[in-house]
This record gives sequence, C-alpha cells and structure tokens, in this order.
Amino acid sequence: MSVGFKAGLEDVVAATSAICTVDGKAGQLRYRGYDIGDLVESASFEEVIYLLWFADLPRADALAQFTRDLSAAREVPPPVLAAMGTYPRHVHPLEALRTAVSLHAMYDPDAHDNSPEANLRKSVRLTAQTATLVAAWRRIREGKPVVAPDPARSHAANFLWMLSGAEPDAESIEAMDDVLVLHAEHELNASTFAARVAVATVSDLHSAVVAALGTLKGPRHGGANEDVLAMLQEIGTPDRAEPYVRSRLEALSRMSRADRADPKHRIPGFGHRVYKVDDPRAARLRAIGRRLAERAGVLDLAETAEATYRVMHAETSLPVNVDFFSAVIYHALGIPIDLCTSVFAVSRIPGWCAHIMEQYADNRLIRPRAEYTGPEPRSFVRLAARR
Amino acid sequence: MSVGFKAGLEDVVAATSAICTVDGKAGQLRYRGYDIGDLVESASFEEVIYLLWFADLPRADALAQFTRDLSAAREVPPPVLAAMGTYPRHVHPLEALRTAVSLHAMYDPDAHDNSPEANLRKSVRLTAQTATLVAAWRRIREGKPVVAPDPARSHAANFLWMLSGAEPDAESIEAMDDVLVLHAEHELNASTFAARVAVATVSDLHSAVVAALGTLKGPRHGGANEDVLAMLQEIGTPDRAEPYVRSRLEALSRMSRADRADPKHRIPGFGHRVYKVDDPRAARLRAIGRRLAERAGVLDLAETAEATYRVMHAETSLPVNVDFFSAVIYHALGIPIDLCTSVFAVSRIPGWCAHIMEQYADNRLIRPRAEYTGPEPRSFVRLAARR
Repeated sequence: MSVGFKAGLEDVVAATSAICTVDGKAGQLRYRGYDIGDLVESASFEEVIYLLWFADLPRADALAQFTRDLSAAREVPPPVLAAMGTYPRHVHPLEALRTAVSLHAMYDPDAHDNSPEANLRKSVRLTAQTATLVAAWRRIREGKPVVAPDPARSHAANFLWMLSGAEPDAESIEAMDDVLVLHAEHELNASTFAARVAVATVSDLHSAVVAALGTLKGPRHGGANEDVLAMLQEIGTPDRAEPYVRSRLEALSRMSRADRADPKHRIPGFGHRVYKVDDPRAARLRAIGRRLAERAGVLDLAETAEATYRVMHAETSLPVNVDFFSAVIYHALGIPIDLCTSVFAVSRIPGWCAHIMEQYADNRLIRPRAEYTGPEPRSFVRLAARR
Repeated sequence: MSVGFKAGLEDVVAATSAICTVDGKAGQLRYRGYDIGDLVESASFEEVIYLLWFADLPRADALAQFTRDLSAAREVPPPVLAAMGTYPRHVHPLEALRTAVSLHAMYDPDAHDNSPEANLRKSVRLTAQTATLVAAWRRIREGKPVVAPDPARSHAANFLWMLSGAEPDAESIEAMDDVLVLHAEHELNASTFAARVAVATVSDLHSAVVAALGTLKGPRHGGANEDVLAMLQEIGTPDRAEPYVRSRLEALSRMSRADRADPKHRIPGFGHRVYKVDDPRAARLRAIGRRLAERAGVLDLAETAEATYRVMHAETSLPVNVDFFSAVIYHALGIPIDLCTSVFAVSRIPGWCAHIMEQYADNRLIRPRAEYTGPEPRSFVRLAARR
C-alpha cells in the first residue's frame, strides 16, 4: 500500500506550493522567488505579507491601501480582551494566545464563510490582531492597562508600542520589522503543515491557525527560542560558554539515541531538519542582535551567544538555526523570555495564512497511513474469562 | 531530495503505530488486534479506552479501577464552564468545544508536565470532560441549567443524562455506547494525524487535542455527519431519495474536477480515502439507527437513509462511510444536527490521546517538504521602481 516509511516524513513531499523555497544545502531562503537577504534589507513586514498573499511585490498604491487595511483591522473584539482578563496570570503566553484566537473565531464576521474573499479578510484581521493579542496578554498578566493599537504606526512599531506603552526608537522598530520579515514564512515547517492538514478537511481558517499555534508551542519548533534564552542566561558570561557546551556535549555523547533527541537534553538553537549549513537568517539576526544588545546594555548576552556559537561550530557539525540569535534580539528588546514563541507567532501568521489560502485553492484531504507494528488479529475474550 | 509527490499523502506511511489497523480492501477495522465487530458487540466504551491506552483488554479489577478514575474526573473546572456561559449562543458547538479545551489547559494540574504519567492523567481528564463540555454547551446555548455529571453512570449513560437532563433508557445507552466504541479510533485520519504533527514538536497534549478538534471540524472529516443529516432532512421521504440522488449525480457529472471535490457538491457519507468497500462500521450503525429511529418515531429518516444508500450503491462505486448511518442515530437520540461533530469528538478523543502518547514515546519531528511550483529566483525591485 505504501511508498515506504520515512520517519517524521523527512524529505517526503506532502504538497505543491508556490510560496517559498528552502535550499538546505546552499543555505538559501526565498519568498516567492525573492531572496530573504534582499527582503530583510529593503522590504517592510507589510510588503512581505502582501508578497506572500498576492504572489508579487506591491506597487506603491497597492501597498499604501494594504497597509491601511491592515492597520485599520488591529482592534480586537472587546469580549476577547475581556476573556483574557479572566485567564490565570501564570499561564504560558502561547496558551493564552491559542485560546484567544480560538475564541476570536466566534466574533469574526466571516467565521462561517470559507470563500477566497472571506479568507483574505480573515487573514488580514487575524494577522493584525495576533500582535494585539500578544501585547495585550503581556500587559494583562503584569496588571497593566492594555495599550490600544495606533493605526498611524507600522506593524512593527505598533507592536512594540502596544507591548511596552512607551515610544519605541527607530532602531528597535527596524529590528522588530527585520525579525518579523525573517520569520514570516518557512515552507512546510511543522506548524504550517499542521495548518494545511486542518484546512484540507475544509475546516476554517481560525481552526487551522489554532492548530498551527498548538504545534508552534513545542520546543522542537517555536518553543526553542525560549530554551535558547534560558540557556544563555544560565551560561551567563562568554568565558563560561566553552566549558558549558563541552560538558553538555559530553553528557549527550553518553546518552541513548532517544535521550539525545529529548529537547531537555539537546542544545537549543542548533540543528535543523532541512538546513545542512547555517540558517541564512542566522547571520542577519546575529548582526541585529549584537547591535541591539550593545545599545540595551546587555552585550554580555550577545557575546555569550557568540561564544556558544563558536564552540558549537568547532565541536559539532550542527548548523545554527533561526532560534539562536533571535533570542538575543527578543531579550534586547525587553521581551520576557516566555513571550518569545508568541512573538514568533506574530511573525509567522502571514505564512500560515498564505498556506491556508493556497491549500483551499487546490485542496485534497491530507490523510497518510501508518505502518502497523501491533499485535496480530486476535480473538475477543470476555471480561470474566480474562486472566 | 524527495521520494515523490503523492497528493494528500495518499498511501504514504507517516508513522509506525501499534494501535489500529484499517484494511480498506477487506473492509476490516481492528483496535490493537481486536475486530471492531467483537468490540462493539461485547466491550464497553470504558473497556475500549483501556484497550487503546494500555494495549490490551483489562481484567475485571483493572477495568473497575479505570472506570472509577474516569468517572471521578468528569467535573469541568468552574472557570471553563463560566467562560462557556459568555460565548455567543449562535456559535458552532465545535468552536465552543475547541475554545473550551484550549482554556481547559490553563486549569489542568499537569499542564506543564509532558511525562508519560502526566499525559495519562491528562488523557483521563480530557476524555472524561470532553463529554461534559459538549453536553454543557448544548444546555448553555439553550438557556437551560448545566446538568452535573453523575459518577455512578457509565460514560455513555452519563453523557446522555448530561445532554438532556432526563433519564436515558437502556436501549439509548447501549446505542450511545456502541457509537462511542465504533468511532473511538481510526489510525491516521486527518485529526489524529494533526494531533501527532503537533506533539511531534514536543508540544503538550492539550495543544494536540485542540489541533485535532480544529481538523475534525471540516466537512471532509467529522463535519460530514452534520451534512448527511441536513441532506436526509432535505430529501425528506424515502420515495424522494432516488430522484434526489440522480439529480445530484447528474449535476456532479457536469462539474470540473475541483468542483466535484468541493464538500458543497459531494454527496456526504460516501467515499473514503482508505476504504474501497463499505466501511465495516456502517452496517452496525445502520442496524442500530433503524432500531432507534423506529422507537423514536422517526423511521422515515432511517428509511430515507436506506433508500439513499441503495441508490448510491446502484449508481456509483462509492462505498458508504461511517458518517452516513451515524447521522440517523444522532437524530434518533435527539442530538441537534450541529452537535453531531462534537459527539464525534467525544468518541474520538481516546484515539487521539492514544496516538499522542504513542508519538511521545518514540518521537521524531514531523516536517515534510513541498514541491515548489512558484517563480524562479528573481531580483528585488525597490518600491519606487515597480510598475
């Protein structure tokens, strides 16, 4: 029945897609044919969202209209904010976000319309409002008033504004915009794939985004940048990176294969299913992180990251991935450690929506098979006769 | 890079599993080696849950203990019930359930523990409480008081009790128990696969169940039994089945391939990715449905279903699937049409949990590739230069 078993669907093609290419050997990433280096250098997050959804870069008038639409859609339905106010303050921010997005569906005027036009409207709203929800939860759990979105600001600037309630400076805004662009899309990563599996049953866009959020949460995916930041804080200073890494690698070398695969034991921020060389996003993030960390007076963290990277590079063949240096940026921007995965969600949601809309446009149920390893057919034994 | 593209991962093996076998050519379904016919005949839903999670049928003492644990876990945390009370009453019950389960994670004492022991405890609670949540939403949206779970009743009896607030009779209880057993597990169906994709990032059990719920919602999956019931009600009487089906088949034959695949146009309850012959569960459901419908005074619906089935059988090669006759049972049990998918969730959650726990036990990130069909690499054009 099968085309053979590839654990974790490694290298198995699960869909056709015109959105993104990841060249794992050359270390190249392109959205709709455009190199990620060019995009982060010259395009805003709004421009990249347009590119992902409409398959080409916008002209100035189209970009202006799209930016207006997106910023006009930032306000969250009041009952969703009210519900967040009742969540226990200790919960993980991604749990709050996953629940709020699921609730958000109930107030979306297009909730029961899966037409291409409705899905585009829902994508605009959900992309705009995910930033609002993440910032709102940060404020709510700290007992501070929620900061209303400001339609006059860019997505990146407004997000920083809502997170802190303080005027962000130009360099922070640019860094946030870059981070959003760099994380916006990455082909069939696990969360995007989960979104496509969900909509392939012709479920709705919110359901698919909720599935993606639940998938992003794991430390083998979006959750990794929280683990990176925790590790860097544990290492503390650059001189301690080498003994720390050596001791963890030493411990890993004595573990079983299963234990080595456990996120508790892996060194977060290194290794990737697709990239065999350093992630092309990492070099950009490294430069941004260093600049921001210096300014924010947390250069030690950036240098600890550099030192850790050098030891990992010398001691292992594991390439650095997107999570490693982004953790430094999040910290320098004052983002709490457990909010990192939620910031990742703010950046990735346009990619999820692009894939959801692409899946709808030429849909087939995603329903693979399992290779059965259980007991042979056996006869039922009634309760009284079991021993 | 790839092993070739199979649209929708048809026949592609995505995992090894010891839980379930689906023989699509012979029309056979087994849980852990036991035939579904034997299980529905002789085992209770509680026994089947035990079988799915512990890989063998329980002895009497183990079953008694497990049943006690499950029924003691039925009460939903009060803040979750309170939140449901604030949901707009018109929302689809599966949206309410998806949101409530996501919220439920915040109150689960093991929320941040992914150990096998904690996942088993979470599986017990979430399996017990999904029934409570579905019944509570039915009561809340009708403005009726929520019926507290009764630990002295079986899962099936208690579910009916909570749904209606009236004493269920023995035949209804048996039918509900059979329906729960028949829907408990089905290998890598789309929702179960979504759950495995989610936990393969080492995300948590609630996140995976939320992903599964969002996936189940689609009319190409769990949502189909709502469409069946709507269709049978539209047909109305047995004599109208033949002209109705002929006219729809006729319309379908004039459509494009894409339109024919659209759930709006497909005839729900027929066709399956894996079964090439009638679904082995359908014959059981047909018999139960007829018996219940007769008693409930809705025999016309059962006979309309029979007539529709006969025409489909004569006119097409599409086998009947699990959704077709289960719709008759749900109707005869007094379950509102838009609650059917939620009842499906009540039955399928032990299967999801079994797969989640199996995935954790030998995990690998599920991350396939896409075949790129987009534009070739192209040079970035600055905004002002675009035309």
